[in-house]
Amino acid sequence: MYRVCLILLAFATRCAIAGFPSVLPTKGEVWPRPQMSVTSNTYMVIRPETFRFTTVGHDCDILKAALKRYIGVIFASYSSVEQLRSQPWRKDGHFRGYLDNVKVNLIAQCEELPHRNMDEHYEIKIDSPDAPTEGTIVSQSVWGILRGLESFSQLLLPSGSAYVLNSTQIMDFPRFSFRGLMLDTARHFLPVSKLKENLDLMAMNKFNVFHWHLVDDQSFPYESAAFPNLSKLGSYSSSHVYSAADVADVVEYARLRGIRVLPEFDTPGHTKSWGPGQPGLLTKCYTNSTPDGTFGPIDPTNDANYKFLQSFFTEVTHRFPDHYVHLGGDEVSFSCWESNPAITQFMAEHNITGNYSKLEEIYVTKLLDIVANLPTKNGYLVWQEVFDNRVEVAKDTVVHVWKNSPTWKQEIDEVTSAGYQTVLSSCWYLNYISYGIDWHKYYECDPQEFNGTAAQQQLVLGGEACMWGEYVDRTNVISRTWPRAAVVAEKLWSAAVHTTDAVAATPRLEEHRCRLLGRGYDVEPLWPSFCPSDL
Amino acid sequence: MYRVCLILLAFATRCAIAGFPSVLPTKGEVWPRPQMSVTSNTYMVIRPETFRFTTVGHDCDILKAALKRYIGVIFASYSSVEQLRSQPWRKDGHFRGYLDNVKVNLIAQCEELPHRNMDEHYEIKIDSPDAPTEGTIVSQSVWGILRGLESFSQLLLPSGSAYVLNSTQIMDFPRFSFRGLMLDTARHFLPVSKLKENLDLMAMNKFNVFHWHLVDDQSFPYESAAFPNLSKLGSYSSSHVYSAADVADVVEYARLRGIRVLPEFDTPGHTKSWGPGQPGLLTKCYTNSTPDGTFGPIDPTNDANYKFLQSFFTEVTHRFPDHYVHLGGDEVSFSCWESNPAITQFMAEHNITGNYSKLEEIYVTKLLDIVANLPTKNGYLVWQEVFDNRVEVAKDTVVHVWKNSPTWKQEIDEVTSAGYQTVLSSCWYLNYISYGIDWHKYYECDPQEFNGTAAQQQLVLGGEACMWGEYVDRTNVISRTWPRAAVVAEKLWSAAVHTTDAVAATPRLEEHRCRLLGRGYDVEPLWPSFCPSDL
Repeated sequence: MYRVCLILLAFATRCAIAGFPSVLPTKGEVWPRPQMSVTSNTYMVIRPETFRFTTVGHDCDILKAALKRYIGVIFASYSSVEQLRSQPWRKDGHFRGYLDNVKVNLIAQCEELPHRNMDEHYEIKIDSPDAPTEGTIVSQSVWGILRGLESFSQLLLPSGSAYVLNSTQIMDFPRFSFRGLMLDTARHFLPVSKLKENLDLMAMNKFNVFHWHLVDDQSFPYESAAFPNLSKLGSYSSSHVYSAADVADVVEYARLRGIRVLPEFDTPGHTKSWGPGQPGLLTKCYTNSTPDGTFGPIDPTNDANYKFLQSFFTEVTHRFPDHYVHLGGDEVSFSCWESNPAITQFMAEHNITGNYSKLEEIYVTKLLDIVANLPTKNGYLVWQEVFDNRVEVAKDTVVHVWKNSPTWKQEIDEVTSAGYQTVLSSCWYLNYISYGIDWHKYYECDPQEFNGTAAQQQLVLGGEACMWGEYVDRTNVISRTWPRAAVVAEKLWSAAVHTTDAVAATPRLEEHRCRLLGRGYDVEPLWPSFCPSDL
Repeated sequence: MYRVCLILLAFATRCAIAGFPSVLPTKGEVWPRPQMSVTSNTYMVIRPETFRFTTVGHDCDILKAALKRYIGVIFASYSSVEQLRSQPWRKDGHFRGYLDNVKVNLIAQCEELPHRNMDEHYEIKIDSPDAPTEGTIVSQSVWGILRGLESFSQLLLPSGSAYVLNSTQIMDFPRFSFRGLMLDTARHFLPVSKLKENLDLMAMNKFNVFHWHLVDDQSFPYESAAFPNLSKLGSYSSSHVYSAADVADVVEYARLRGIRVLPEFDTPGHTKSWGPGQPGLLTKCYTNSTPDGTFGPIDPTNDANYKFLQSFFTEVTHRFPDHYVHLGGDEVSFSCWESNPAITQFMAEHNITGNYSKLEEIYVTKLLDIVANLPTKNGYLVWQEVFDNRVEVAKDTVVHVWKNSPTWKQEIDEVTSAGYQTVLSSCWYLNYISYGIDWHKYYECDPQEFNGTAAQQQLVLGGEACMWGEYVDRTNVISRTWPRAAVVAEKLWSAAVHTTDAVAATPRLEEHRCRLLGRGYDVEPLWPSFCPSDL
């Protein structure tokens, strides 16, 4: 039982007493697991009233904000059970002293924006042999400092009115450069406050890409300055809209946490909500040779549509500073195109009668060309269908693999054989809920586990957890996404050799779940258990 | 789209514009659907500053508290979209006047406690032919008044700074007398605040039994005065405990809402957490002829255990005033009994060697006898295994059907053929989540749809939705239980003939979901949609 085990020192993993099957959490282990970590059973004590971070290298707004933020996270997070409060740490043989100052050493200048090649390496030394009774977080990059601060915050355990942390050395860096999480704000609108909660949790799990699936058939909540009718007529209501200021707010919030925002504007399918605000954009569907009032994908035969897309994406790429945009391209239904006589005529004129994949290719090729030639010279991600349909794409295109037919392994093999970079989501559709312990399968999926050369493996940038929004809104987006997304986070950050055993990860995940709950987030339980913050 | 449809009058059900597939909510329809309801398109207007309820019949604490509560619910619930606010009602040909006073007419004296035979009939008349431009809620029973107040609150629609409601007559009563919802506080502890939120939602859906599965293998959060060690040694921590005051608080909160609290103390299985606090209670399990330190079900051969159970249930039945207690009796594993030589010897002495069902029967028979002969003379519910194992039970026993092997229909037929009352849960294990629209199957399950005589049908008291707690705690208990439990609520309250078509119920369920969200509860979405309170 918990109370009996609490008095043991850190790193007890299980404790079966009187038949209780509860998972006993680890104490002060970092999630996702660092590449290298050495911890001894000596410890230092941090007192909230005297503790401070000291910047000894470069400094900037991102770093200042982070230090302030982590003071809050560290000292306001735990609401511990009373036994914990009444069992303060004691000066014993393992006590190494008070840690009043942690030096934050940023070796190179800050970068302004997180980017696809950002350096996230960092080191932490707490009472290390080369610097006894001192504490340092060091990195070449502000992004590494951010990751190090998160790890540091996870080392601390409350003890009475102070916090203890073991003497520890960490050298850490991510396995993959692309560690994404997708939310869908079209099937249900999510308030900015929930997007920020999710960004907080992403930072606490070292995710670095927020893929924002902004619009879809059901609604168009993105407010465009150039085309205000898109949201005016395509959103659920005038309140269910992200203004330019909202977008800037989200992008800045993410930037301060080292998270890129990857906006998705999916075309030519999944675009019903674009129609009312942009007449002529969508294909008119016909029944019995007359328009039946319904609409299909974007009309690829209308030249005006490409001018619109150019203007629209010019604005998008100014609002979203990341090099990449996600251009979608999935699940294009051909039935409406088939019904439309103008489309049929266009295809005849272009000698592609009956070949709707080719028609799709014409559209996608033009769109990719537009986006690549914007003043911002963006790169793009596309869903795998664009590759599957043999559309010619730029060499730095990232193919987003989401299907499992026949298998994602085969798809990734083909994509990387063709020389394209790729990101895997097939195993991480978190919206597909099921009863029981479903996270083992997330932990057992490895994006590099396919038949491919070393060069092919290198083209796997990482992966992304997806939370599609059909059954998710502000009431359940956090609890349904977390802590299951944390499982994906570890898979994408930590060494492959350290992430093969879900059962072994369980006590660390239990600690991490309670940690996030203690920090005020509604992360749901993964098995029968309890946390100090249940109350 | 919503904004286009909003200016239509009430009772538009769907509105497909520009290809948007959203479900359009009804306006001012009551969930669960009343037995009889007549509404016209004339309407009255309620102004918050002048509106009041007037008690014209009997009065009591329950009624006073309810009137106060519903003033809050009615006038603080909706946070409407701005268009709604800017489109006030207008005095037109349908305007029938201001409704400043609704008479609440309780014809008979209040009862103090909700009970198994309570009367929940009520009538509502708003601008009815026999009382034009007046409003009345009338019932023979305070429980009927509570149900009527809830229905009345659902008729109102915000309009500018006022509320409109159509001229309406409702005559309503429940189809089933037992409409239960179960929460499990043993796999995860749920704070009292969440239990109360759930009771609020139960009242808003006219549930009348809160089945509180208090303890189980994983933890014993119930604090007993006579046996304090049970929770001291069996709870997750000393904070994860319901004190006597907590229990009284929950019981009173439920009473004021016309909800019975049915406590469950499941024995002889599911009792691991009882062991540490009550030495000798559980059977010692043996491996290779020696006790292996693990424990099985309650030891039925130890006479001291029956004395303990008598004292324990004496206290329980004083704290929980309902006539019924739930005594469990499900899923007893025999392997530990089989390993224990003292058990084997006892069985030989009683001529039941090898017949562990018989041993279970000996235990259960004694327990039922104890509970039936307490000073409070309680009745009991038991899980179906007690009946399946042919334990002799009192005639007023309620058999709780939860399995589906071979089918619940066959089980209910057998239970009622034997003359026992029954409650069905087999189709309503809400904890079994799956992806997509899963609520249709809840709506399509009818507890009286089995081969049985009219007399057998009469023995079906109703049903109960269960939310077992393995994967549920305070972070997701509300969103996972609701609004899916509301589907069960309608099935149990409304006429069978009115609850056969899930698709037809959809627009009303959409309104109800948004209503509950607007009242401040995290009820999750059931399909792509939006509510004014999403923001």
